[in-house]
Amino acid sequence: MSSLLDRTLESIPELDAGAMKAARERQDVLTKPQGSLGRLEELSIQVAGIRGEAVPRIEHKVVVTMAADHGVAAQGVSLFPSDVTPQMVLNFLQGGAGINVLARHCGIRVVVVDMGVAGGLGVHPGLVSRPMGPGTGDISLGPAMDRAVARACIEAGIEIVEEELGQSLDIVGTGDMGIANTTSASAICAAMTGKSVSRVTGRGTGIGDEQLAHKVEVIEKAMAANRPDPRDPLGVLAGVGGFEIGGLAGVILGAAAHCVPVVVDGFISGAAALIAAGFSSRVRPYLIGAHNSAEIGHRATMDHLGIEPLLDLRFRLGEGTGAALGIFVVEAATRVLAEMASFSEAGVSEAGDEPKGGTG
Amino acid sequence: MSSLLDRTLESIPELDAGAMKAARERQDVLTKPQGSLGRLEELSIQVAGIRGEAVPRIEHKVVVTMAADHGVAAQGVSLFPSDVTPQMVLNFLQGGAGINVLARHCGIRVVVVDMGVAGGLGVHPGLVSRPMGPGTGDISLGPAMDRAVARACIEAGIEIVEEELGQSLDIVGTGDMGIANTTSASAICAAMTGKSVSRVTGRGTGIGDEQLAHKVEVIEKAMAANRPDPRDPLGVLAGVGGFEIGGLAGVILGAAAHCVPVVVDGFISGAAALIAAGFSSRVRPYLIGAHNSAEIGHRATMDHLGIEPLLDLRFRLGEGTGAALGIFVVEAATRVLAEMASFSEAGVSEAGDEPKGGTG
Repeated sequence: MSSLLDRTLESIPELDAGAMKAARERQDVLTKPQGSLGRLEELSIQVAGIRGEAVPRIEHKVVVTMAADHGVAAQGVSLFPSDVTPQMVLNFLQGGAGINVLARHCGIRVVVVDMGVAGGLGVHPGLVSRPMGPGTGDISLGPAMDRAVARACIEAGIEIVEEELGQSLDIVGTGDMGIANTTSASAICAAMTGKSVSRVTGRGTGIGDEQLAHKVEVIEKAMAANRPDPRDPLGVLAGVGGFEIGGLAGVILGAAAHCVPVVVDGFISGAAALIAAGFSSRVRPYLIGAHNSAEIGHRATMDHLGIEPLLDLRFRLGEGTGAALGIFVVEAATRVLAEMASFSEAGVSEAGDEPKGGTG
Repeated sequence: MSSLLDRTLESIPELDAGAMKAARERQDVLTKPQGSLGRLEELSIQVAGIRGEAVPRIEHKVVVTMAADHGVAAQGVSLFPSDVTPQMVLNFLQGGAGINVLARHCGIRVVVVDMGVAGGLGVHPGLVSRPMGPGTGDISLGPAMDRAVARACIEAGIEIVEEELGQSLDIVGTGDMGIANTTSASAICAAMTGKSVSRVTGRGTGIGDEQLAHKVEVIEKAMAANRPDPRDPLGVLAGVGGFEIGGLAGVILGAAAHCVPVVVDGFISGAAALIAAGFSSRVRPYLIGAHNSAEIGHRATMDHLGIEPLLDLRFRLGEGTGAALGIFVVEAATRVLAEMASFSEAGVSEAGDEPKGGTG
């Protein structure tokens, strides 16, 4: 019997060309100059293709925010101690974090997942517990996790999407929390894009020049210790990844397999998208880039995926904060397509029509 | 007795430095790395300074969409006939236009104003009627309007803001409708920024190369006929402006005088902002740029004002569509400031804290 991962990869369909054509034709008769709502028009057509509907509606919106710890935090790559990972998860559950505020503002539900926070979090209402261990191994010394665990992370993400589908899910955004996870994401980015470590390693929570140089050295050690191969995305995840990054790759794959658009947050989520897209070329059309993260490797990630993110608000927080606003923009796009009047409905003259008055 | 315009200009206060300092200090103790919500943090501090409150709240949101016709439309500068101006106003009143959809999505009220639509619109519930005439004079032949009418346009905008304040108003966005108004806006932009006409004239509703060359010639004729002087913003408006552009300049001045942040939409609204800021250097801090319009003169306009717009979704529709999404982003910023937990409230360790566990 094939695994959930294999079955998911096999079931990702191509976008629905007929729905996209119908959406494009409708955009062109709405009461505005053709193309004048720019990216909203493109987004509405992409979502039509993903959903297989000429006029898709978005009502049920979720950001999945996955948290896990990273053994490499012990190398002093972050400004914050690892304690902050569980503390922030509790903050998510209490509604006080950035993602909570922005999700409330955008009418989005936040699903908080423990993918392996050190020390354990115990049982909390509203916390989805899928811990893969007490944080990953230190990638500067060896693999983050076994291949079997990497596969389990991805399959947990797929299962979480399938659970949400049971409650209705029209769009999903990705989010992350994990002290030191930009270190892992930089390693994944370097592995998958072929860029040098120094060109895809940034300041994370805000480290200074000296700590940044140290972080680059730590990631170079991780690359040497694990030799990640971009043709083997599961191996890249196992070698230099993180539990939450694997989980988010699963969310992306599960969403694609079920025709749900995925709004990819920032640099960590981008690393998950690199892993997911590494498995199948069918994944890419389901992805929408939320924003240009201020973390420098994000640009290389998006370029590699061929994605132009929607927003540029200089976010570098993660958690799904950019994805929340991105989802709001995608919903705006589908509402424009669904709710705007056409020229004929509104009795508005089209471009080039003979004017009834005037000489213009 | 001084005029409403003069009294308004005299009453624009400087931003409240104390409120800005308090907002900045609060941002720095919220549960995120400092600065990691980028432009939302900056926006929340700007709005605190405008409102004079350390933790401002935005509830009552309005886009004022002003419509008027332009005599220069007779020169064939647009793809659409002038008939479209009143047709689109009716579309606004029926809720079928782009601004209606996006304003509904963002929880914003749209105030539709007839500043001088040719043929007249009659009485409609929900339409604010302040017509200054049946469209402006053809600027390629002479002035758009008398100086007294230009002043009346601006004062109508101030009065509309003051009426909205009576119903509560926490933020206002600007929007426009008027066939051929990019022609007028390009002339204003050239006059106020000193750029050549060809560098600030774009395709408006989507004209081709030949019609664009003709449009540039028409605007150059307007500049020669009116010789607008950037030191005399009222004269620029009277010479090459539009009724709706003058009205929007008034909305901006009225908002600034009453400590209300103004989200400036695209190229036409930018021209109104150039006029408004031309009257007083106190105006600029009240302005928030919604988006980078695809209309080429908008960049020069924003650069001249020293504004970096929030969004870049390649909109070129006007109506306030970009302002609606911009207002939503500003509201997000104020909610982050008001609703996020601080490190001490959430029990989260701050950067550089001694870790309780781990070695990092």
